[in-house]
Amino acid sequence: MIERVAILSTGDEITTGKVVDTNANYIADKFVETGMDVAAVVTVGDVAERIVWAWQQAMQQADVIVSTGGIGPTADDLTTELVAKVAGVELTFSEEVAENIRRLFASFNRTMPENNLKQAQFPAGAEIIPNHLGTAPGYRLDLDTPNGKKHLIVLPGVPREMKPMIEETVLPWVREKRGGGEVFLTRTFQTFGISESGLDEMVAGVISADEGNLAFRANFPQISMRIIVRGKPGEAEQRLDTLSDRIRDKIGTYVYGEGDVTMEDVVGQLLKEQGKTLSLAEACSGGLVGHRVSNVPGSSAYFQGAVTAYSDSAKTQLLGVQPATLQLHGAVSEEVVREMATGVRERLGADIGVSMTGIAGPDGATEEKPVGTACIALAMDGTLVSRQYKLWGNREWIKTLISQLALDWVRRALLGIPINEAGFIRR
Amino acid sequence: MIERVAILSTGDEITTGKVVDTNANYIADKFVETGMDVAAVVTVGDVAERIVWAWQQAMQQADVIVSTGGIGPTADDLTTELVAKVAGVELTFSEEVAENIRRLFASFNRTMPENNLKQAQFPAGAEIIPNHLGTAPGYRLDLDTPNGKKHLIVLPGVPREMKPMIEETVLPWVREKRGGGEVFLTRTFQTFGISESGLDEMVAGVISADEGNLAFRANFPQISMRIIVRGKPGEAEQRLDTLSDRIRDKIGTYVYGEGDVTMEDVVGQLLKEQGKTLSLAEACSGGLVGHRVSNVPGSSAYFQGAVTAYSDSAKTQLLGVQPATLQLHGAVSEEVVREMATGVRERLGADIGVSMTGIAGPDGATEEKPVGTACIALAMDGTLVSRQYKLWGNREWIKTLISQLALDWVRRALLGIPINEAGFIRR
Repeated sequence: MIERVAILSTGDEITTGKVVDTNANYIADKFVETGMDVAAVVTVGDVAERIVWAWQQAMQQADVIVSTGGIGPTADDLTTELVAKVAGVELTFSEEVAENIRRLFASFNRTMPENNLKQAQFPAGAEIIPNHLGTAPGYRLDLDTPNGKKHLIVLPGVPREMKPMIEETVLPWVREKRGGGEVFLTRTFQTFGISESGLDEMVAGVISADEGNLAFRANFPQISMRIIVRGKPGEAEQRLDTLSDRIRDKIGTYVYGEGDVTMEDVVGQLLKEQGKTLSLAEACSGGLVGHRVSNVPGSSAYFQGAVTAYSDSAKTQLLGVQPATLQLHGAVSEEVVREMATGVRERLGADIGVSMTGIAGPDGATEEKPVGTACIALAMDGTLVSRQYKLWGNREWIKTLISQLALDWVRRALLGIPINEAGFIRR
Repeated sequence: MIERVAILSTGDEITTGKVVDTNANYIADKFVETGMDVAAVVTVGDVAERIVWAWQQAMQQADVIVSTGGIGPTADDLTTELVAKVAGVELTFSEEVAENIRRLFASFNRTMPENNLKQAQFPAGAEIIPNHLGTAPGYRLDLDTPNGKKHLIVLPGVPREMKPMIEETVLPWVREKRGGGEVFLTRTFQTFGISESGLDEMVAGVISADEGNLAFRANFPQISMRIIVRGKPGEAEQRLDTLSDRIRDKIGTYVYGEGDVTMEDVVGQLLKEQGKTLSLAEACSGGLVGHRVSNVPGSSAYFQGAVTAYSDSAKTQLLGVQPATLQLHGAVSEEVVREMATGVRERLGADIGVSMTGIAGPDGATEEKPVGTACIALAMDGTLVSRQYKLWGNREWIKTLISQLALDWVRRALLGIPINEAGFIRR
């Protein structure tokens, strides 16, 4: 059974600091999910002796080596040639892959430069890993060495091409090799409105060690929670469903979605399903909430518009906030934010009006209202809710928290669940 | 003279894919700037034998080894102990550093946990690298080995602490070691509105190889251009100024700032200096321009507010766009965007009104107006300018480009230079 993986990244663009190597992080995350141990991550530039050194070291440290980069068509793409050398095998030419590359170029109405044929060369005995999004396929080479079985996996460095190859071909192979017939399955919940330790407390004891594992990952402003189970196909799926139900029973309203979903995706989906429209009145968030809402393709179906009323005159002029309310309570008050919500909803003829004001800092604080004071209001179906928060962090952090809170209010309002009372008290 | 550097990162959080290692990228970038060659980047988890292996390998590959992580106070922080072991020296205790740590805790009104004294231990002979933002100082250990002189540099893994330590202590030492009395100096220009190859062409031949080097770095939506010179102190500064003037002569209006500055910083500074106020009317950008403007601390001094008129009714209701103009020319037209700019400026009583509409995709395109069609208008001092663009890319890309263009229009208007006519044609 395979146990340890080493991750290699090749490319001058990484060693000269031009790009951050996110491939290694992606691959580590995926392999850890299968229960593998990441022994080392090694990065070298496009220099033959350094690439050879990296492969030799990796093969000492691990039984699976996953490499990205260095399999393009140009002279500085050295990986395949050097892998064959390190493995002690010949290079062979795949007429089938060559034909595929030619076809791909033809489909773009371009003639294939001759050096692209380099990408049809493979170490003898390698198993091709298909690449549906680029010209260079990857491959896996299984070797018997004095040091045990070694599995060399070579992939392109372009994340867009590499990721599906990992998902579709590499991970199924890893799971098979790892499992002895067993599978690893995971499900991720996105949560908001409660701290990692708060979540941890709520789910304590819900899953026993032999049923599965729970992993948290803070990805501000949300915290994701992943359930990992291992077992026979069928049985494992069922167990994952059971555990998911148990977790949802405990933390249900804090879960806003499953998988790689954002709060604005979820809110957009709910608005679309319920045929409702949204309007926003922002202040210190500066437009961030509208920016997030409009990041979702098709949002024009439900997003009517927003007013960012940074100045007091904008609040009165564009939203109909009463000057007396501003004077009496100040811009960052529940009174003002309530008038903003009803004002924007009326003016834009929307079903929902959400508004937020706050002091994002570093300026603007008073003794009574320190940096992080924020107010949110939501008007919908004849009801009007508001609340004041004490948030913390720097300007960017506070803006992000306010935008996430406002979107979570819309989600909760549409689902008919109470607006969250927990968390977000100054630590 | 030192030539080659190896970069080590230690931490389970990296090898398990929980965080992306951005430290290695930062360090590589800074060292490449000094002319050093990055031989390898190696990452291992918090496992003693792997850390030892990584140090041994690094010392074979390079004469300077820079390590981040593993010098915290807890049991899994193994770096210092293992560096002493690899170097074959004893651990010594610094009473001075211990005192500093105690003082730091006292200043937070907290008692120091005993295990923090671990951070006052160093390999014998190590030179302390001060850390002004945390409890763990770093250090440099110079060794004579059969394999030549080796310099082991150990730093904390927290980027906020590590970066100033690199800037203030490590880089000056590197430059001295590299320079033989010579210094490396750099200056970075941030540019927008022209492609990398376009810039490259404009500055071709302006700097000769013995005067200095130019390095480009695309960091969408801007491209930065760095001048690197090497020479005797004084003379090098003068040469850098001369070369900077020559470069500015060639590409002047495309340069919006020097150093790590954003377009919204520059626009904010200009508005503040000239005592002018800004209002925005957004559509497909959804609030992104306002979000960026309001990211600058103190922006409430000049940012009046914004209207994000996603729907047609929002455009007429909140900005006074004539329904006939919308019907005749469509929402994405110079006619509509001009009415939006004057409308928002009037309603918010601002000196400048800027507006933008566009089709960010994937929906909403027509044969006449494909995805990427965008219009911008700017009203100021009785003048009204507008233009239609054909942009490209996905939804996020187009929104970002529109926001950058709009801010660049404000910059150019405030500086009295023509609004950019180059670039941004569909490729």
